[in-house]
Amino acid sequence: MADAKDKPDEPTSDNAVPKAVVSRLSLYLRELQHLVRDGHETTSSTQLGRLLGFTDAQVRKDLAYFGQFGYPGIGYRCSELIDAIKKILGTNQPWALAIVGLGNLGRALMGYRGFQHQGFRIVAAFDVDPAKIGKSIEGVPVHHLDDCSRIATEHHIRLAIIAVPSPSAQKVADALVAAGIEGILNFAPVTLNLPKHVRTIGVDLAIELEQLSFSVVNPPAKG
Amino acid sequence: MADAKDKPDEPTSDNAVPKAVVSRLSLYLRELQHLVRDGHETTSSTQLGRLLGFTDAQVRKDLAYFGQFGYPGIGYRCSELIDAIKKILGTNQPWALAIVGLGNLGRALMGYRGFQHQGFRIVAAFDVDPAKIGKSIEGVPVHHLDDCSRIATEHHIRLAIIAVPSPSAQKVADALVAAGIEGILNFAPVTLNLPKHVRTIGVDLAIELEQLSFSVVNPPAKG
Repeated sequence: MADAKDKPDEPTSDNAVPKAVVSRLSLYLRELQHLVRDGHETTSSTQLGRLLGFTDAQVRKDLAYFGQFGYPGIGYRCSELIDAIKKILGTNQPWALAIVGLGNLGRALMGYRGFQHQGFRIVAAFDVDPAKIGKSIEGVPVHHLDDCSRIATEHHIRLAIIAVPSPSAQKVADALVAAGIEGILNFAPVTLNLPKHVRTIGVDLAIELEQLSFSVVNPPAKG
Repeated sequence: MADAKDKPDEPTSDNAVPKAVVSRLSLYLRELQHLVRDGHETTSSTQLGRLLGFTDAQVRKDLAYFGQFGYPGIGYRCSELIDAIKKILGTNQPWALAIVGLGNLGRALMGYRGFQHQGFRIVAAFDVDPAKIGKSIEGVPVHHLDDCSRIATEHHIRLAIIAVPSPSAQKVADALVAAGIEGILNFAPVTLNLPKHVRTIGVDLAIELEQLSFSVVNPPAKG
C-alpha cells in the first residue's frame, strides 16, 4: 500500500535495513501488544512466527537487525520488546499530527482509533472550506490551510496526513513542507514532488484489493 | 498494512510466490499505467526499477516468477505487460464488490476513485441502520445486512469490504461468509476467524504512520 519508493525489499542506499523488515516490526509490535493484553509476559520467535505466519528464523533474523532481545530459556519479555520496537520505530515518543482535507476520508481518519493507540495524536485539522474552518471535529479544531505554519510550530507538528482530492495534493504538500512538516502520509493517488529531507508514504487502497483478488484467484493448494 | 498472515516475505506452503513479490506487481502495474498515459509504448526493467526505487535485477526477478515478458532490443511492451499483470492479479476481469458499514470510513471508501480505476466496482452497500437502508450513496443502493446473501447472489459479488466498528466485525464477516463471499478486505482492527477458503486482508492504517515515523527518525545518510 505504500509508494514503491518506500517499500523496496532489499537494502537501499537510504538505509541499511530493508523496508520489508521495518514493516514487519509493526506486525510484531501488534502481536506483542495483543499478547500483553491477554496476560502473557514472555513469548518466543516460534510463537510470534506462528501468530503471524512467518518462520521463527524470519522473526529472529528481522529482530537481529536491531540488537539482541531474547533471553536464553525465557525468550522475549513482551513489554521489553514492545519498548524496544517502539524506540526503533520512533513511536516511544508521542507524535503530534495534522490532517489536511475534511471530506469523508479526512473525517474517517480523524475518528480512526488505531492512530491514537499507537501514539499518533491528531492535534490540528486543515481545510479551505469556510464552512468548516473554526469548527471542531472529533474534538480537534479546524483551521484554514493558510495558517498551517503557525499552527504546526505552536503544536510541534512534524507529521501530516493529506486527504484532499488529487488536483490539490501537491499544493497542500508544498504548504506543509513550508510549514516544516517532516513526514507526509498521502492518500491522494498522485506522486508528490518533495524535497529530499521530507519523507512520504503514499497509500493506495486499490493495491489491497488487488492483493485480495490475487489470493482469491490463486487459492492455497489443497492438502 | 495487511495482516501479517497475508504478508510473509518468504514463500509459504499456500503459494509458491512470495507475497512481497505479488505486492510489487501492483506497483509495476501502476507505473506501467502511468507510462501508457504519458504516451510510452515500451519500457525496460531499468526504467521501471528507477521509477520505483528498485534495482533492474529485482524487477526482472519478480516478473520471472510469472513468465517471460521482455523482448530483446525492445524491453517490455507496456500494454502487453499491463494485461499480463492484470491476469496474474485476477483484475483482467471486473470484480463486483460489496461494502459493509456506512460510517465516515465506509462512505469515504464508496467515493474512492482508485477502486473503479483498477476494476473494482462497488455494486452494493450494507448497513443495519434503518435510516440508511433503501437510500442510495454514490449511486449505490444501501441494503440491510440481512439481505446480503440474496444481493450477493444476484450481483455475483465475491469480494467485500468491512468498514464497521470492531465489535461488529466478526458478526458481519460471518454473514458475508454465509453469503458466499470469497475475499474480505477488513478495516476493523481485529483479527477475523474465517473458514480457510475465505481469503482476508486486514488494513491497519497506523502501520503506515509507524513506517513514516521510522523514516523520519532514521533519515537517509547524507552524501
